[in-house]
Amino acid sequence: MEVEDLFAVDCSGRQVLEHLTSRWGVLVLVALKDGPLRFHRLRDRIEGISEKMLSQNLRVLVRDGMLDRFVEPTSPPKVTYSLTPLGREAVGHLCGLVEWITRSAERILATQAEHDRRS
Amino acid sequence: MEVEDLFAVDCSGRQVLEHLTSRWGVLVLVALKDGPLRFHRLRDRIEGISEKMLSQNLRVLVRDGMLDRFVEPTSPPKVTYSLTPLGREAVGHLCGLVEWITRSAERILATQAEHDRRS
Repeated sequence: MEVEDLFAVDCSGRQVLEHLTSRWGVLVLVALKDGPLRFHRLRDRIEGISEKMLSQNLRVLVRDGMLDRFVEPTSPPKVTYSLTPLGREAVGHLCGLVEWITRSAERILATQAEHDRRS
Repeated sequence: MEVEDLFAVDCSGRQVLEHLTSRWGVLVLVALKDGPLRFHRLRDRIEGISEKMLSQNLRVLVRDGMLDRFVEPTSPPKVTYSLTPLGREAVGHLCGLVEWITRSAERILATQAEHDRRS
């Protein structure tokens, strides 16, 4: 597959790109970079995410092979998510972007303010 | 700003992250990495994007300081978009992710197929 293929509407890589870079997908993956987390811990960590959206994102990322889902047969069952080796590679790239945004936040906010003043 | 701040619902960096990694935002930015493009050329390049979604994404990315918008005063006016220096930094990180996805596509698709067989 080439980068160029991602511009095609039926490209499977484009679907994976959308999963990894979806509104919540990025935050779920980055939240897991320091180690496995239980479902409720993830929900509390990512402010604003609903349980429904979290479940949906986790399901997609497990299917893509980015996350492992581990169920302890307790009552109620404890469900833990962790990055797979593939997921860790993805997070490496996402962290580069995320860290750049935090480093560049001041410049970006200044540009936005300047833009709003002029328009 | 710290990476941790991005998990807060009112974080301005989180908004920027959402713009850069939105469904169309990534493709718009990557499409511009080899040079400026006119509006219609961008629309044709990114299969499946509507003119409305393209306009909306371009407006947000201009406001964030990622893109420059250049209008030639012809009739009808020709509008060209290009990456700013800030946008080029962002694209550097996005390209790392995009290239990794294209390199890893086979592994990801095999994982999906295996997952679907088991469930």
